[in-house]
Amino acid sequence: MDVDEFREFGKAAVDYIADYFQTIRDRPVLPSVHPGYLGELLPKEPPQTGESWQEVLQDVDRIIMPGLTHWHSPKFHAYYPTAHSFPAVVGEMMSAGFGCVGLNWVASPAYTELEVVMMNWLGKLLGLPEEFLNCSDGPGGGVIQGSASEVTFIGLLAAKEKKVKDLEADIKGKLVAYSSDQSNSSVEKSGLLGSMPMRLLPADKEGKLRGDTLLDAIEKDKAQGLIPCYVVANLGTTPTCAFDDLAELGPICNRDNIWLHVDAAYAGTAFTCPEYRYLLKGVEHADSFNFNPHKWMLVNFDCSAMWVKNARYLVEAFNVERIYLKDQHKGLAPEYRHWQVSLGRRFRALKLWFVLKIYGVEGIQKHVRHQISLAKYFEELVRTDDRFEVCTSSMGLVTFRLEGDNQLTKNLISRIQERKNIFVIPGQFRNKYVIRFAVCSRLTERSDVEFSWKEFQSQADEIIVSKITSEVGDKKGIGAIQLSDAGCDKNSIEKCK
Amino acid sequence: MDVDEFREFGKAAVDYIADYFQTIRDRPVLPSVHPGYLGELLPKEPPQTGESWQEVLQDVDRIIMPGLTHWHSPKFHAYYPTAHSFPAVVGEMMSAGFGCVGLNWVASPAYTELEVVMMNWLGKLLGLPEEFLNCSDGPGGGVIQGSASEVTFIGLLAAKEKKVKDLEADIKGKLVAYSSDQSNSSVEKSGLLGSMPMRLLPADKEGKLRGDTLLDAIEKDKAQGLIPCYVVANLGTTPTCAFDDLAELGPICNRDNIWLHVDAAYAGTAFTCPEYRYLLKGVEHADSFNFNPHKWMLVNFDCSAMWVKNARYLVEAFNVERIYLKDQHKGLAPEYRHWQVSLGRRFRALKLWFVLKIYGVEGIQKHVRHQISLAKYFEELVRTDDRFEVCTSSMGLVTFRLEGDNQLTKNLISRIQERKNIFVIPGQFRNKYVIRFAVCSRLTERSDVEFSWKEFQSQADEIIVSKITSEVGDKKGIGAIQLSDAGCDKNSIEKCK
Repeated sequence: MDVDEFREFGKAAVDYIADYFQTIRDRPVLPSVHPGYLGELLPKEPPQTGESWQEVLQDVDRIIMPGLTHWHSPKFHAYYPTAHSFPAVVGEMMSAGFGCVGLNWVASPAYTELEVVMMNWLGKLLGLPEEFLNCSDGPGGGVIQGSASEVTFIGLLAAKEKKVKDLEADIKGKLVAYSSDQSNSSVEKSGLLGSMPMRLLPADKEGKLRGDTLLDAIEKDKAQGLIPCYVVANLGTTPTCAFDDLAELGPICNRDNIWLHVDAAYAGTAFTCPEYRYLLKGVEHADSFNFNPHKWMLVNFDCSAMWVKNARYLVEAFNVERIYLKDQHKGLAPEYRHWQVSLGRRFRALKLWFVLKIYGVEGIQKHVRHQISLAKYFEELVRTDDRFEVCTSSMGLVTFRLEGDNQLTKNLISRIQERKNIFVIPGQFRNKYVIRFAVCSRLTERSDVEFSWKEFQSQADEIIVSKITSEVGDKKGIGAIQLSDAGCDKNSIEKCK
Repeated sequence: MDVDEFREFGKAAVDYIADYFQTIRDRPVLPSVHPGYLGELLPKEPPQTGESWQEVLQDVDRIIMPGLTHWHSPKFHAYYPTAHSFPAVVGEMMSAGFGCVGLNWVASPAYTELEVVMMNWLGKLLGLPEEFLNCSDGPGGGVIQGSASEVTFIGLLAAKEKKVKDLEADIKGKLVAYSSDQSNSSVEKSGLLGSMPMRLLPADKEGKLRGDTLLDAIEKDKAQGLIPCYVVANLGTTPTCAFDDLAELGPICNRDNIWLHVDAAYAGTAFTCPEYRYLLKGVEHADSFNFNPHKWMLVNFDCSAMWVKNARYLVEAFNVERIYLKDQHKGLAPEYRHWQVSLGRRFRALKLWFVLKIYGVEGIQKHVRHQISLAKYFEELVRTDDRFEVCTSSMGLVTFRLEGDNQLTKNLISRIQERKNIFVIPGQFRNKYVIRFAVCSRLTERSDVEFSWKEFQSQADEIIVSKITSEVGDKKGIGAIQLSDAGCDKNSIEKCK
């Protein structure tokens, strides 16, 4: 493909994406394909000779589109949002277009340096303590990683490195990590990958991990000769967007020299608005902090922002060169390959820059406030109907259920998923089966929220009728209607446990 | 930014990339910026209000372009290639444009299913044994990862999981891994991350790891009560593109039930051409295999292809759900999040598909053969000049040096890097300081190779003159000219050790 064909193909693809977004509201949010559908549509072997780009776009339409779940449909309310904006899409394309690899500073100085500046901008935008920033005098700094999972794991490795250094002994087998039982499965996974037991401690009735709980667990482990090493605190849990009490957890970690990592993957974006910064209280005790602009801050996946107070421990955990560190991790040109698993790096700072430039601080704040107001609006709607109860409401996430037996809510979500008009996933909170309603798409408006709410109400009507019929049937000895959760995706449920 | 603005911005960006490629041959391959240049050009805080996309493109020109190292300049001969093609750029943009996240099958069925089919296509294209493919009956399969570093580390975790399962005992502290001293630093890093000592065994004089060397190391460790667990064999080392002897290493690993991982990051693409498949001999003994379409197969970074013979060990190393596996990793819809560190995944299969469709098998083979022929041509040119010696030549990589003291070659590379007409990095091979000349850009032609060769010759002329002058100077007691390697990047040197 020569440059002129690229001009045509690239512009046709821009139009394809634009058209897709202009019609996304009218598409069923969930696809209707069966597992294996795509293999049936493609040949078993790669083509021997090349095809035209027109054929490629036709195949995207024929083969890919039917198998997409439309994450940016205004009726997508599952999981948490994944970010999307046009400036970020163009940023991703230009990054691919330049096609450099940020192995080290000289491999493309702009790659490293734009990332340094963007991580300073972003840290200031969130109100992080200055010692986390590259522009501070100390050994702190920020870096873009691929996901919160990666960051949690990298934090664990740094914590291990630090503890081993501090104690100057072979104590790796004695190290223990802690988090809440409301944490995302990726937190448990990081313990598994890093060979460090991860204790999932019980959250309080609001879903928060409290200081006393952590302290008890730490003391118990110390009494057994184990060494507490790493704590992952959540600012915005996956099931209910609960906020662990950093102001309680922080001093406990600091006292015992335990690495405190703060995971604010979703909710971190809210700290761009000063009115939510009170939830950051205690962050000054943390050793590392993470949030995902690729969740809520309009930057396409992947772009996960990580800051550490002392980059030395990261570099020492990852650096096989073992060269002198003082001037390496700091200042103008950190060697970011020693802050991560891989050697190579994409130019993710570019799309972050595009988003910050084109939206400005005000544009991002407006987006956050608008989405929170939509969740509040949905909460109000649920409260108008006595058959439902609101379980939690925080940021852009509301969890709710049908009053009564869990099976009713299971049945409701099952029906909703089968109808494919909107997409929500179930969760569990305090032994109750709940529906998670997240405001995800930046296209979602009040009318979409109303549409979704009517979908819940209409299906609740059906279920309540079924229930009454089945109870009458029971009395007649016909047997209850079998409720099934076949429409629920078990993996989605896991995400919310 | 609304849809109509995106149409304008996106198309302007397509033209920007196209213009960049049409002028890339005329740009100095290395930038002339100093560390910290970019921070001086940007404000210290993010903009409060948004800017226009026209301003953004102007800033790309003003701020980013001067700080790029042009990896796709025909005069870029450093490291190894990083792939680039227009179909892949468009694929990356469309993947960002759709903006879904492949958390699991239902989160976008096309994401998982296209990856399954592409990994089958790719495995067949390379001539891998069928048991590695998703379409085989067994538990094997392929998956796209972010980099060879990631894959090596993931392989290590799977190997550990398998060994612990096999021996049913707490033996993690006794496990040992092996590779050659010619391996990329990422191999050593994976041992560090996975807490498993990585023995870097001496390669033979051709840079290959041989069976006897491995066997000796294994026996020595076993005698000490240690448990050999993981071997990383290279098909194409970083310093010289040497090929470890798989046919010797394989049976040794199989006998002791040691996980054999094959790293063919760069050279793997050559196996798309049947005439190079003899180098794959012994791959049937491997447990996992990796090559990077993002290096040499025209797919932009990141796209690292990994296959395993038994995906169960991957899934068990990563899966915190611990649900029944039999139907999960196989067949039509593997849950790829259990094959990797992160939960989320981009739609990297899309750009791979675009490249395979638009180039076809023949287009890729033509690209590989052309680049190898250019390296051969460069080798011939070097051999015409008695002042130089060719040290190695394999695939698209030639290593060579000035005859005589290492300092002469150091001085040559230093001059070349300072002039910025071409970009090469140094390496070390058998205690000799060498220049690595890699054919990287798909735009490189014979005339570019001739240009580069003239650059080497002209600077060699200067050095030889300096040397004579300095020797005369020495005799006069003036003192030798200080040779400096300031122009060399120490981190680049490390890459090639």
